[in-house]
Amino acid sequence: MDNCIFCKILRNEIPSSTVYEDDKFRAIMDIGPVAKGHVILLAKEHAANLLEADDELLSAALPAVKKVAKAVKKTMNCDGINILQNNGEEAGQTVFHLHIHVIPRNKEDGVKLPPPMATYADGEAAELAKKIAENIERREC
Amino acid sequence: MDNCIFCKILRNEIPSSTVYEDDKFRAIMDIGPVAKGHVILLAKEHAANLLEADDELLSAALPAVKKVAKAVKKTMNCDGINILQNNGEEAGQTVFHLHIHVIPRNKEDGVKLPPPMATYADGEAAELAKKIAENIERREC
Repeated sequence: MDNCIFCKILRNEIPSSTVYEDDKFRAIMDIGPVAKGHVILLAKEHAANLLEADDELLSAALPAVKKVAKAVKKTMNCDGINILQNNGEEAGQTVFHLHIHVIPRNKEDGVKLPPPMATYADGEAAELAKKIAENIERREC
Repeated sequence: MDNCIFCKILRNEIPSSTVYEDDKFRAIMDIGPVAKGHVILLAKEHAANLLEADDELLSAALPAVKKVAKAVKKTMNCDGINILQNNGEEAGQTVFHLHIHVIPRNKEDGVKLPPPMATYADGEAAELAKKIAENIERREC
C-alpha cells in the first residue's frame, strides 16, 4: 500500500522506534501516546483492520501482544495495561492498517475509559443477543 | 474458581445472554454496556487477564472476536467497533477473568477514547523503546 503510513514505517521509509518484531508483526512506540510507554503492534501484512484480517494473522496477534505488554509493564513499572484496537473512523481509527494499542496504566494517571452509557429495557439485551447469534458467520467464505 | 462471576456465568449458575460459543470462548451481552450491542468474550479457562493467559488460548481469541464483531456490526448496523481488553484494576479491569470487549460505535455516539496525554522529550521514546526491547521475553518459561 503505497500511501499507508504504517506500510511506509514497515518499509523503513519513515523512522520509528521498534520494540519487538516477529514474522507477522512489528511493535513500535506510538508517537502520540496516551501514556509514556504506549506501544502499537503493527501487522506486517496490510489489512485495514481486524474485521478484514485473516485468521492466521489474528491468531498470532495476542501472543505477540502479551510479550510486548509484559515488557512494557516491566519497563514502565506500571499498575496495569489496556489493550485497544479500533475499527473504523467512527471508532477512533486514524490509520487504516491493522494495529493494536498497548497502553501502560497507573493509578490516578487521569486516563478515562468509556463508562457504561446505555441501558436495556426488559428483554432487550436477550433479544439483541438472539439477533447477534443469528448473524454469526458459521463458515468463512 | 468458586467466586469468580464469569466462571459462575460459564457454569450457568448466573444467567447471561449468549451470542457465540466455541470450545475456548463464550460471548455474552455486557450488562453494563458502553453502547447497545456491547458484547464481552469470556475465556472458558480461567486466567486473570491476558498477561496470565497461555498462548494457545490467546491464539484462538481474535478469530473469535472477529466473528463476534462482524455479527455485532451487522446486527447493530454500526459505523465501527472498538476492541478493548483491560489488565489490572488500575486499567479498569473489574472482573479478574480474561474477557475482551466488543463495542459497537457510531458517529456522534458520545463515546470518548483516551486522547494522547503524554509527550516525549527528544530521544526519550527511542530510549524507552530500547529498554522495552531488552525486556521482551525471548522464551516462555
